[in-house]
Amino acid sequence: IESGNQERARALTEDLHESDVGAILEALEPDQRPALIQLLGDAFDFTALTELDEALRVEILEELPSETVAEGVRELDSDDAVYILEDLDKADQDEILAQIPSVERLALKRSLDYPEDSAGRRMQTEFIAVPPFWTVGQTIDYMREAEDLPEEFHEVFVIDPGYHLLGTVSLNRLLRTKRPIKIADLVSEAHHLIRATEDQEEAARTFQRYNLISAAVVDESDRLVGLLTIDDIVDVIQEEADEDIKRLGGVGDEEVSDKVWYIAKSRFPWLFINLITAVMASFVIGLFEHQLQKMVALAVLMPIVASQGGNAGTQTMTVAVRAIAMRELGPHNVLRVIGRELVVGMFNGFVFAAIVGAMAVYRFGIFDLGFVIAAAMVINLIAAALGGILIPLALNRLKIDPAVASSSFVTTITDLVGFFSFLGFAALWFGLT
Amino acid sequence: IESGNQERARALTEDLHESDVGAILEALEPDQRPALIQLLGDAFDFTALTELDEALRVEILEELPSETVAEGVRELDSDDAVYILEDLDKADQDEILAQIPSVERLALKRSLDYPEDSAGRRMQTEFIAVPPFWTVGQTIDYMREAEDLPEEFHEVFVIDPGYHLLGTVSLNRLLRTKRPIKIADLVSEAHHLIRATEDQEEAARTFQRYNLISAAVVDESDRLVGLLTIDDIVDVIQEEADEDIKRLGGVGDEEVSDKVWYIAKSRFPWLFINLITAVMASFVIGLFEHQLQKMVALAVLMPIVASQGGNAGTQTMTVAVRAIAMRELGPHNVLRVIGRELVVGMFNGFVFAAIVGAMAVYRFGIFDLGFVIAAAMVINLIAAALGGILIPLALNRLKIDPAVASSSFVTTITDLVGFFSFLGFAALWFGLT
Repeated sequence: IESGNQERARALTEDLHESDVGAILEALEPDQRPALIQLLGDAFDFTALTELDEALRVEILEELPSETVAEGVRELDSDDAVYILEDLDKADQDEILAQIPSVERLALKRSLDYPEDSAGRRMQTEFIAVPPFWTVGQTIDYMREAEDLPEEFHEVFVIDPGYHLLGTVSLNRLLRTKRPIKIADLVSEAHHLIRATEDQEEAARTFQRYNLISAAVVDESDRLVGLLTIDDIVDVIQEEADEDIKRLGGVGDEEVSDKVWYIAKSRFPWLFINLITAVMASFVIGLFEHQLQKMVALAVLMPIVASQGGNAGTQTMTVAVRAIAMRELGPHNVLRVIGRELVVGMFNGFVFAAIVGAMAVYRFGIFDLGFVIAAAMVINLIAAALGGILIPLALNRLKIDPAVASSSFVTTITDLVGFFSFLGFAALWFGLT
Repeated sequence: IESGNQERARALTEDLHESDVGAILEALEPDQRPALIQLLGDAFDFTALTELDEALRVEILEELPSETVAEGVRELDSDDAVYILEDLDKADQDEILAQIPSVERLALKRSLDYPEDSAGRRMQTEFIAVPPFWTVGQTIDYMREAEDLPEEFHEVFVIDPGYHLLGTVSLNRLLRTKRPIKIADLVSEAHHLIRATEDQEEAARTFQRYNLISAAVVDESDRLVGLLTIDDIVDVIQEEADEDIKRLGGVGDEEVSDKVWYIAKSRFPWLFINLITAVMASFVIGLFEHQLQKMVALAVLMPIVASQGGNAGTQTMTVAVRAIAMRELGPHNVLRVIGRELVVGMFNGFVFAAIVGAMAVYRFGIFDLGFVIAAAMVINLIAAALGGILIPLALNRLKIDPAVASSSFVTTITDLVGFFSFLGFAALWFGLT
């Protein structure tokens, strides 16, 4: 298909939704992607590019001539245009922007000037705003005649001459009201304004908390500058959850389409931190070299204590990190939750102490060894519970994302406490020196 | 405030959004919660209950008299009503439903009859449907007069006399069209229908993929039965991401407000599975008891090999599990991704082999020990890479959620391979028996 037949390509993609076109692009070989876009010409809807992974999108955009990109970007709603442009480097951005008419260019530039991941980057600058003294009839006629309306909208903003937001009127309210009524009588106060400089995560929380479909975005002087809609917010929620999962798993912001070298590099720091942890644990074991030599059963059993602690700590930490991210852990319940984790840790500690103690006695026939490993198990599961909840809380207080760092800290604690308590108890109990 | 002053309580909560009322309920003592709701009487909006954790909601609902709940539920949109009722046990549900007028009762019952977590449970049954031969004017007049319209809606459905969906008309299309035009001329085909029996996760993916705001829900015979809106979908996306994170961390569906006993019980199985893993690892170590006695340095170093493998395996697995959940891993790229993980594993394997080998030589002064641990490290990081990607893929093929089970399998592999390769190489190399 690739080799030249423009008619066929257009006919084939014509009826497809932009997400499906995106999926086709993804499945193609790297050099076929820009080729297909150029073949389609203006039949290609640039919205499809917003459905791709960042790495692929940048790759394709860099291959395409800047006039083609400028053409394509002009057709988009401003939020999609910004989404496509924001990952390019400054020089490429300027080259493309230079070929866009000045009104649109200024709007795009303003959005791009807001910080990365801010509400200003995600908003669309197309919206409908009317003065309060208009009637419903005037508003409807205006909408019937206006040319460059956004594709989708759910409310009309009401503003004063200085572009300050007075309130909103929902479309269904407008539809159900007689034409001579004044807009001023319908307007409902806009409670949940989003600031353009606000973090997109903050904006997403406002949407979720108040079940919003769209919200007005205002600048520092409270002037209306854009509109944020829930479909953009859905992407933000998904992205943030994805980020949390990957951080907990010790990987950065990698995507399935990333290159080997990028991935190896991004995973290295986490493995290196883990190595430091493992070396510390190994150092603790080294303190008991003589005891291990005298009683090799200790070497066989010690990983069990450390591993159960690591697992229990990860459980507590996962719940804590999630609760912090969802703002469910606050002053009103933090003590209760810490207390609860402590009780759960002790309970599971005693149960597993009994199981493991019995197994150790059975395996090695040394009765006292059962008590030593049981005591170490209880202590390590309590340490796991406390570490699992206190470390994320402390990191959060220090303004470090608990999802990034908690994991290594928690397993460091459970490894050290696990090996030290087990080997230490054994040394004392059996009088090994 | 609690002790009796109805006027004050009403005045205080009057202007609050339902989410804020929900937050107040959460902060109160358990027995004050139903007390406040009864005090507020019909000034209490039951929507606030949808903002609470499941455990709290059920607790409150069981305390309230069933007439109060029935009253409150009647005021809600059907999707919120179902959300509140679905967690109650059958007897309580029936008691409440019995006190709701029959039309509404039937609608609620039908929604509750759909399987848990299906689109049918999440849809609202209030929607606007008109025949295609109506004009825009008739439709607008109908909407102006209709009493029990949903609070929010964004499109009008067009149906035939048998309630089969012919298509949809968006409100803004309706607003911008002159009154005498026929609905039939405006209707756009509804591409993305949701089946009522479909899983809510599936529905959420359709919404995300096609950036929908609302979609029609149809039954087995393609009749229109409800409307799914994006605000419900946002909750689904959040829930599913939350579930994935918790499963990867080895915890069930617990919430911050759950009781100690419930949590201890739900975490126990994961810890037990981990114990089996740890005992298997310990068994492998036990095979080398004699060698460990002769060369205690092996006991000191062995956790490093296992721990690095576990970490690298978790990294690969996190990316794989996420990619599977987001449907980003398919036949077209699975071989490439496996190859990539293998290369990354080998690369990081060699780097860490060099570091750890050098450290081992420095610490114990045995030159050959460096080579032994280096070889074991390379092998274990390759095993981690393969396990991290192949295990989630295999579980997915077997229709088991990879987020639940992958973690234990992957660490089992890296523990066994790590201990076995390191101790085995050492035994061979140094001729220990």
